[in-house]
Amino acid sequence: MPLTISGARDDLPRPPVTAPMSDDSGPSRTEPRPAERGGGGGGTLTRRALLVGVGAAGGAGAMFAAMGALGLAPESQKRDFVPPQRSDFSLTGRGAAKVVVLGGSIAGLTCAYELGKAGYDCTVLEASGRVGGRTITLRAGDRLDELNGETQTAGFEEGVYFNAGAGRIAQWMITMDYCRELGVPIETFVNNNASAYVYTRGMTAPVRARTARADLYGYVAELLAKASDTRALDRRLTAEDRERLAEFLRRFGDLGPDLSYRGSGRRGFETYPGVGEGVPLGTPPSLREVLAAGTGRALTMDFGYDQAMPMFQPVGGMDAIAGALADAVGRDRIRTGTRVTGIKNLPDGVEVTHQGGTLRADYCIATLPPHLLARLPHNLGAQVTAALRTPVPAAAGKIGLEYRRRWWEIDDRIYGGVTETDLDITHIWYPSHGYHSRTGLVVGYYNTGKEAELYGGLSHADRRNRALTQGKKIHGEKYRTELRSSVSIAWQRQPHIEGGWVTWPSHDGGFTLLQQSAGRVYFAGDWLTHLVAWQAGAMESARKAVTELHRRVLQTTS
Amino acid sequence: MPLTISGARDDLPRPPVTAPMSDDSGPSRTEPRPAERGGGGGGTLTRRALLVGVGAAGGAGAMFAAMGALGLAPESQKRDFVPPQRSDFSLTGRGAAKVVVLGGSIAGLTCAYELGKAGYDCTVLEASGRVGGRTITLRAGDRLDELNGETQTAGFEEGVYFNAGAGRIAQWMITMDYCRELGVPIETFVNNNASAYVYTRGMTAPVRARTARADLYGYVAELLAKASDTRALDRRLTAEDRERLAEFLRRFGDLGPDLSYRGSGRRGFETYPGVGEGVPLGTPPSLREVLAAGTGRALTMDFGYDQAMPMFQPVGGMDAIAGALADAVGRDRIRTGTRVTGIKNLPDGVEVTHQGGTLRADYCIATLPPHLLARLPHNLGAQVTAALRTPVPAAAGKIGLEYRRRWWEIDDRIYGGVTETDLDITHIWYPSHGYHSRTGLVVGYYNTGKEAELYGGLSHADRRNRALTQGKKIHGEKYRTELRSSVSIAWQRQPHIEGGWVTWPSHDGGFTLLQQSAGRVYFAGDWLTHLVAWQAGAMESARKAVTELHRRVLQTTS
Repeated sequence: MPLTISGARDDLPRPPVTAPMSDDSGPSRTEPRPAERGGGGGGTLTRRALLVGVGAAGGAGAMFAAMGALGLAPESQKRDFVPPQRSDFSLTGRGAAKVVVLGGSIAGLTCAYELGKAGYDCTVLEASGRVGGRTITLRAGDRLDELNGETQTAGFEEGVYFNAGAGRIAQWMITMDYCRELGVPIETFVNNNASAYVYTRGMTAPVRARTARADLYGYVAELLAKASDTRALDRRLTAEDRERLAEFLRRFGDLGPDLSYRGSGRRGFETYPGVGEGVPLGTPPSLREVLAAGTGRALTMDFGYDQAMPMFQPVGGMDAIAGALADAVGRDRIRTGTRVTGIKNLPDGVEVTHQGGTLRADYCIATLPPHLLARLPHNLGAQVTAALRTPVPAAAGKIGLEYRRRWWEIDDRIYGGVTETDLDITHIWYPSHGYHSRTGLVVGYYNTGKEAELYGGLSHADRRNRALTQGKKIHGEKYRTELRSSVSIAWQRQPHIEGGWVTWPSHDGGFTLLQQSAGRVYFAGDWLTHLVAWQAGAMESARKAVTELHRRVLQTTS
Repeated sequence: MPLTISGARDDLPRPPVTAPMSDDSGPSRTEPRPAERGGGGGGTLTRRALLVGVGAAGGAGAMFAAMGALGLAPESQKRDFVPPQRSDFSLTGRGAAKVVVLGGSIAGLTCAYELGKAGYDCTVLEASGRVGGRTITLRAGDRLDELNGETQTAGFEEGVYFNAGAGRIAQWMITMDYCRELGVPIETFVNNNASAYVYTRGMTAPVRARTARADLYGYVAELLAKASDTRALDRRLTAEDRERLAEFLRRFGDLGPDLSYRGSGRRGFETYPGVGEGVPLGTPPSLREVLAAGTGRALTMDFGYDQAMPMFQPVGGMDAIAGALADAVGRDRIRTGTRVTGIKNLPDGVEVTHQGGTLRADYCIATLPPHLLARLPHNLGAQVTAALRTPVPAAAGKIGLEYRRRWWEIDDRIYGGVTETDLDITHIWYPSHGYHSRTGLVVGYYNTGKEAELYGGLSHADRRNRALTQGKKIHGEKYRTELRSSVSIAWQRQPHIEGGWVTWPSHDGGFTLLQQSAGRVYFAGDWLTHLVAWQAGAMESARKAVTELHRRVLQTTS
């Protein structure tokens, strides 16, 4: 059974965006859960009804202001999503509609989940055999098909898993809210580890991230402290500024009293302090060598707002979120193995054809990847087709390497985190779970673009061999000899997905057009957000589609 | 029942050391556990016997070289500890001795645990009601006594706990090895969180760590990039160096094409990207204001080798390690509530007097804090007393604030980590466990020195009120209104401990003297290492004492 489905995906570096958006959705917040509301639900309904009314009349800005006045607005991380509820219909005399959702992706499941809160009759059509889209967790016995390629079966030991798609969640993302709301337990994902390695092609041996950081920061601090000290920066700095800057730079670089960098315990130790004071790693390379090593990319990897530590993951595998959403939607509403073959707007509804027949509904939300939607026969117009063809699918790949022994913990003292390299494997991820257990799985590459196309074009055996050859440069012979099993994924070759994510050449035109419904058809997916490749993007887009569809239903006569 | 016992403690900032040590213990490693040795134990014993022989003859250096030749030496993090085993006696015809261990601390328990592997008959005398020393985890109903002070009882809800002492473990520490060996499950301790706050006295409102970091790094990068660009640094940098440095600084500070810092998404967002591109936090303060804010200390907090992310903690409370050690030692060998009152070297043994009588043994290992040992009647000589009086006890304190609601996660989107401040509370720790559960406990201060003395001198109610007043500056009124219960500890007022840790004015003299046995009395504790205030220090010291005692027993005739 193939494990892939169209949908959204977490954890990938944010692709470049080329233009600012004109339709920013404004401040937003999450409605407190019933448990936090204090007592019963009576007052809550009144407040909700007020908010829905304000929202319909004055838009998100007015709604947020009203929430602030009601004392609901938190101090930060504002979100304005108010999920549809059954009571929303009580004043209008209208009822929930029938909605067909295309794709059992994170976006599709979130749509069905949120609409379900108000009693909408949702049906989710999913081409593949299971839900979750680009959230795939492979376990012992799971099969993975590839377009025009081989089928792999995960030969992992019981308890070992491989998040082949989405892998991490930032604290501010609404993915966290869904974990909380759905009761999906979470744990820390180690996205940056001072004990992991940095390896660039010029190196004879990898260095620990802590060592590379100490040296680069040390020299940067020294250079600036000395430039400041020689008054080269007088135009910018007062005497007081200079003093404060010097104080910071001394800390930042662990400089000596003469403002020179000569190494530091921060580099790490050959023998860490204990009874003895320890044997430090030795004197640092020269400034010249440190700059030439090119470790800067690795060291700034987690500076972005979407990569900063700590990050999080569901306990037991990323697919727990999709699974919890599917359970909440109701598995009977989700038809897997049902590929959509056409979408037609009708005067009073929408007609979706699929492998098994035809489905009529009041509305449709299409969450398939845009390049797949573009291929479907539809009557939504040429502009929609052109818009769907605009974003460019990107290649992305990962390999899971299962080892007999957690050598990264035992030998290398690396507990989770990422080794950064400029080799074509790009990253090695060590597991952030199962610490000290017997076996475990390392992500041997997670690459994109050209590298992902290169690996994706190979057979699995060749991908594995190439990944092992590269990783051996960092970890030595054990990287090959202790391997137990492996599985690789090339997202551009995944049926019903055909890409790791998409990149928009610009956010004008097509991106803006598809934010609107085309007749009774709405679009949703991470690809319609500025959080492309994140589950949170799929969820944000789903919330927007749900909000607009619900507002329309509340306002429509008949 | 009081919960405090003398012993060792993890997690505190490393106190300054004033002199290098002359007796560095050299390279070291951990013997692989039986499970990793492959098949049966036969070959292992031979190899062990060889290693013990080499160690006895040539010291640690020779032993490590031999282990390397045997293919046992890992690539890094070398450790040379070889635990005593029953088979060590098989060639000598000698037998294990009787040892009395003073203190059910981490050091004392580790001694008894390691000696027990070779069949030593150990008895642990512990003054307080439970084991673990400065590793204390308080749970619902636990009582905490204070010298000349009140007794508190933890009123926490079921499932809430407070690590009042040791709180975190670095990856390279042997504490991790003991967790692995003893089957104590571990999880990530978030020691640095980009979403936590930095608050210094000049600020009108706290800033997120990510914001403070983006601004400080941005300006530092700009200043150096421009100094480099104007060739102020020509003497140090070739053209190629300058180019590489500029490339790094652009990444490091997220600079514009003109090498200026004008803010960045790294500062965080008022509304994070979603369907819209997000509303960034706005333009940064001026260079002047950023330097004046004094956030540098907070931002470099985890740069040290002992504080770098990720760190770890046992699942369910730090006392799991002491508990597992005590179980492995055998609870029947540990006499709690038994305060030692005297130590006497005899020609053929040692005599320890305690509250309940007298105990004779072949050897003694004393692990009480040095300032308490110094007060005991003994016949170890005036030099030993002087040495024990040399290290200076330090004050340290913590308060656990239990809240009705995890507002730091729900309102502030902070999942674990530390808010750094120059207020007298110094830090606020958010829990790295129980994410998304209903309630939780925040460490409202963790301070040392003058601040710890100030808080320690107050009643618990006054400590709490002061901590709430300070924390309110960062978190607002909810910091007070949502409090459910609290417990505070002042380590300098803990019975049988009387200090957070000790500081050695110098590592010559007394420190060196106490590394040797005084007759048949050995000393062990974090206070005899360069890992003062860390459980790992206690364990390293214990291993040294055990190794030397065992070697002596193997070599002694009779």
